[in-house]
Amino acid sequence: MMAAEAYPSYPPELSQTQLSYLLQNLMDYSLSHGLAVRPAESFISKELSSNGALATHAPVTLFPSPFSRSCLEEGRAVQKDYNELYARVSGNEEWLEKIIVELSEVDDFMARLYKVHLDVKAEGFVQPLSLGLFRSDYMIHNPAEDPNALPVIHQVEFNTISSSFGALSTRVSELHRHLARMGAYPSDSIIKTENIPVSPALPELAKGLAVAHKAYGSGGEGRSTAILIIIQPGEKNIFDQRWLEYELLERHSVQTYRISLPDVPKLTKLASGTRALIYSPPQAPNTQIEVSTVYFRAGYGPEDYAGEDDWAARTTLERSKAIKCPSVITQLAGAKKIQQVLAVDGAVEEFLADRNVSSRVRGTFAAIHPLDQSPAGMAARKLALEKPDTYVLKPQREGGGNNIYRGDIPGFLKSIPESHWSGYILMELIQPPALENTIIRNGGLMSGGVVGELGVYGAILWKDGEGEERGKGLKEIVMNSEAGWLLRTKGRQSNEGGVAAGFGSVDAVLLVD
Amino acid sequence: MMAAEAYPSYPPELSQTQLSYLLQNLMDYSLSHGLAVRPAESFISKELSSNGALATHAPVTLFPSPFSRSCLEEGRAVQKDYNELYARVSGNEEWLEKIIVELSEVDDFMARLYKVHLDVKAEGFVQPLSLGLFRSDYMIHNPAEDPNALPVIHQVEFNTISSSFGALSTRVSELHRHLARMGAYPSDSIIKTENIPVSPALPELAKGLAVAHKAYGSGGEGRSTAILIIIQPGEKNIFDQRWLEYELLERHSVQTYRISLPDVPKLTKLASGTRALIYSPPQAPNTQIEVSTVYFRAGYGPEDYAGEDDWAARTTLERSKAIKCPSVITQLAGAKKIQQVLAVDGAVEEFLADRNVSSRVRGTFAAIHPLDQSPAGMAARKLALEKPDTYVLKPQREGGGNNIYRGDIPGFLKSIPESHWSGYILMELIQPPALENTIIRNGGLMSGGVVGELGVYGAILWKDGEGEERGKGLKEIVMNSEAGWLLRTKGRQSNEGGVAAGFGSVDAVLLVD
Repeated sequence: MMAAEAYPSYPPELSQTQLSYLLQNLMDYSLSHGLAVRPAESFISKELSSNGALATHAPVTLFPSPFSRSCLEEGRAVQKDYNELYARVSGNEEWLEKIIVELSEVDDFMARLYKVHLDVKAEGFVQPLSLGLFRSDYMIHNPAEDPNALPVIHQVEFNTISSSFGALSTRVSELHRHLARMGAYPSDSIIKTENIPVSPALPELAKGLAVAHKAYGSGGEGRSTAILIIIQPGEKNIFDQRWLEYELLERHSVQTYRISLPDVPKLTKLASGTRALIYSPPQAPNTQIEVSTVYFRAGYGPEDYAGEDDWAARTTLERSKAIKCPSVITQLAGAKKIQQVLAVDGAVEEFLADRNVSSRVRGTFAAIHPLDQSPAGMAARKLALEKPDTYVLKPQREGGGNNIYRGDIPGFLKSIPESHWSGYILMELIQPPALENTIIRNGGLMSGGVVGELGVYGAILWKDGEGEERGKGLKEIVMNSEAGWLLRTKGRQSNEGGVAAGFGSVDAVLLVD
Repeated sequence: MMAAEAYPSYPPELSQTQLSYLLQNLMDYSLSHGLAVRPAESFISKELSSNGALATHAPVTLFPSPFSRSCLEEGRAVQKDYNELYARVSGNEEWLEKIIVELSEVDDFMARLYKVHLDVKAEGFVQPLSLGLFRSDYMIHNPAEDPNALPVIHQVEFNTISSSFGALSTRVSELHRHLARMGAYPSDSIIKTENIPVSPALPELAKGLAVAHKAYGSGGEGRSTAILIIIQPGEKNIFDQRWLEYELLERHSVQTYRISLPDVPKLTKLASGTRALIYSPPQAPNTQIEVSTVYFRAGYGPEDYAGEDDWAARTTLERSKAIKCPSVITQLAGAKKIQQVLAVDGAVEEFLADRNVSSRVRGTFAAIHPLDQSPAGMAARKLALEKPDTYVLKPQREGGGNNIYRGDIPGFLKSIPESHWSGYILMELIQPPALENTIIRNGGLMSGGVVGELGVYGAILWKDGEGEERGKGLKEIVMNSEAGWLLRTKGRQSNEGGVAAGFGSVDAVLLVD
C-alpha cells in the first residue's frame, strides 16, 4: 500500500546539461566546504586511501526534499521537553531498573552496560553533572486513507548517544541553499533559498559541549582542561566530528583530543582521590590534560567492545570526574524498550508534570496498543484482526521474535493460543509521504522513490542527586536547548528499481505549507 | 655555493607519533576547509576521478616557513606602486610597441597576442576600464658574502594574468595557524599563532572583481550581469577558483559562470552596437546574461590556444564591452622582457613620477648591468670576468639562447668576440636563505632543503583614454589595493636527495625579525 506521490511534479526534471551543471557545482561545493567523508573501500582501495589524503562528498540528495513546515516546527518545539524527559528518565533509577533488568535477560549488551553503571554506583559517583546531546528521529505520518488529515510527525527512535550528522546537516542545508542561489536549479522550480533554512546543528551541538566544558570548572594542580572524544578507529564519517572540534576551538577556545577505547588504559589515568580523568596525549607524553567532558562517538553498540579491556576502559571513564556525554545510565535510557514503555498511558506523565508538555510529547508518539484483555486491548484485537493494513505486531520482549506486518497479522494471531496475545503489542505503521529524489554517493546517482527521516537535536546539561540521592530524581537542569535538525533521506523499502533501500543520504528540508 | 642554514634548528624535530598526529590533523583540516585540489592522474586514475567526486589536500608544507617580517612588509608596501606601474605601462603603447615588436620576432605567442590587440584597436575599444589582479613574485636576497646585510626582496617576475593560489594562500595560513593553536607543533618550537598572519588574498581578490563588476554598471535591456571566468577544461586547481566564486556570491552577491575558450563562440555573442558580451548558460539556454567582467584563469600561454577558433574567441572577448581582467595589452605588459627593460635606469621613473615611489619599486629589482662600453658596462665586464659567482649572464633578446651561470661566465665571454658582449646583460643571482621543511603532496612526504617565493597580490581598476586617446597614457585609477600574499615553497634546485626541485607547495609565513 503505497501512498500517491505527495509532490508529483517534484523534483524538477533536468536536461542532461542541467544535471551535469548541478552535479559539478554540488561536488565542488561539497568538497570545498567539508561536506565530505573518507571514501569507502568499495570506492577507493585501502592502499590508495590509507594515508587519509582523499575525501569524497558526503552522500547527499541532489534536491532538498519537500518537508511540512508545521512538522519541522513541531519537532523543534517539542525537543526541549524530550531533553527533559530523557534526563528525568535517566535520573529515576527505580523506574528504569525494572525495565533494564527485564531487557538484560534478552540483551547481553544492555546487561553489560548496566553492570558498568551498578559497579560505579556501588563505589559512588563523583560528578553530578551529565550532558546529553540527543537526537529524536521522526517520520512524517500522512495517512493515505485520510487525504484531508494534516501531516504530523511520529517518533521512530530517540538517540541518547553518538547522535551523528549534526555538522553535515548544517553543511547540506548550506549546499542546497547555495545551489538555489547560484541558479543550479531550474528557475521555475519551487526550490528557493528562503524555503531552505540552515540547520544550526553544528554550532548548537558545539555550544552544548562548550557549556559542559565550562561547567566542569578548572583542572586540579594547574592542569589545563579539554574535551576527550571517544572514536572508532578508521572512522569514515570523520569530518562530521572534526567540524565540532573546529567550532569548539575557534568559537569557544576549547581543546579536544580524540581517543579510541583500546587506548584509554595507555593514555589516561584517574587522579587518586578526586578521580579527575588525566589524559597524556601520545604526541606530548609529558603533558597532563584534565578531561572536562568525555564525548562518546563510539561505544554505542556491542561491536565497539572487543573484550574485557574495552569494558574496563568504559568503566574507567564512567568512574571518572569528567562529565559524560552520555553517562551509561543515559545510554541505557535510549533503549527502544524505554520508548515503548513511555508510550504506555501515564508513563510520560510521571516525568513531565505539566499536562500541556506531556501531551505535546505524547502527540509525537506513534499509536501503540496493548493486546491484553483490558477494554483498550480488546478494541485493539478487533483492529488487528479486521483492519491490520496500517499496523505492525511486535513482541513485548525485545529480542523475543520477529515483527509481523500488515496482512500477516490475523493469520499469525490465529496460529498461536489466544492466551499468548498479550505478549504482543500492536503499533501503528508510520505512513510517510511518497517522495522522489536523486541520491548521489561515491559520485554515482540513484533516482527514485525515497523516504525522509527528520532528526531533531537537543542539548541538555543536568545535575543528578549526590551520594544517597543519586538516581532518585534529577536535581537541576543547568542548560536545555533545541539544537538544530537533520533530514536523512533513503530509498523506499518496497521500491522497485531506483534508489535501493538503505541507500541513505543527508538532505535539506524544502519547507512547504 | 649554498648559504649556511638560516634557521639551523628549524623545523622542529618530531617523533614518529608527533609526525603522525600533525599529519592527520593537517589532512583533515585541509580536506574539510577546501585547501584541496583534484587528485593528479598519477595519484588517482582517470576512471576513479573522472566524475569529480574526489579531492585531495593541496600540496602544502608541514610547517610554516620562517620569513623576514620586514621583507613581507616591504613587498606589501610596494604593491600599489607596482599596480600603478603596470597599469601605466599597459596604457602607454608608444613605449610598449617597440619592445613588443622586438619580442614578437622571437616569440610567436606574443606576436599573436599583439595582433589581437591591434585588430581590436583598429576597430576601436568600447570599454575604457581595465582590471588587473596582479601578483609580484619575489625571493628573499640574503647574500652569504655579507652576513650582516639585512635580507631584502628581489623580484623574480610580475604576473599580469591568471595570478593563482590566492584562495589556497588564505587557507594554508589558516591551516598552519590552526595546527599551532591546537598544539600539533611541539610547544617549545617558535611556531606561534601570533607569528602566522592570515593572508587576505581570497577576500581581497574577490573584492577586486566585485569592484569591477559594480563599475561596469547594469546590463542593457534589463539583462542581469555576471562575471565570466575563462577556465582550462579539467582544471585540477579548481578549488582555488571556486573560493573566489563563493566569496563573490556570498559576500558581494555577484554571479559567476565558468567557460572554456572553445565554448565562447557557442555560448556568447556581442550585442550589435554596444558590443555587450551576452552569455547564455547551457543549463539555461534561454537566459541572456550580460558579462560585466571577463576573468582569465586560462589563456596565459600558447598551449591554451588549440587553433584559430580559440584566437577568434579571445578576440571576441577583447572586442566586447566587458571589462577584461586582463586586457591583451596588460597581458603583454607582463612579459619578462618588460621587467628587464623597466630595470634599465630611467624606465620606471618615466611611469612613476614621484622619486620616492619609483626608488621604492626599484629597490626590489635584482641588479641588472649592461655589458656595453658605457662606464657601467665596463665595470660590469670586470665583475663578470673576476667575480662571476653571484651572477647569471643572459642574452638581451628573449628566446635567443641559454643563460650562463656563475663560474661558466668568464670562459663563455672569452669564447665569443668582445664585440658581441653588449648583446648580453649581467644579472645578479638572488641568494635566498637556506631553509628546511617537509612538503606533503598526494599524501606523500619529502623533507629537505627548500626555497620560498613570496607573491604579493594587487588589485587595480583603471580607466584608459577613449577613442584617439586610447594607449596614450592611463586616465584615471579607480581602485588600487594590495591584496594579500602567497608563499610558495619548493625543493632547492641543487639539493642532493630530499625535496626534488620544482616539487612545489603552498606555505604560510612564520614571521621572524
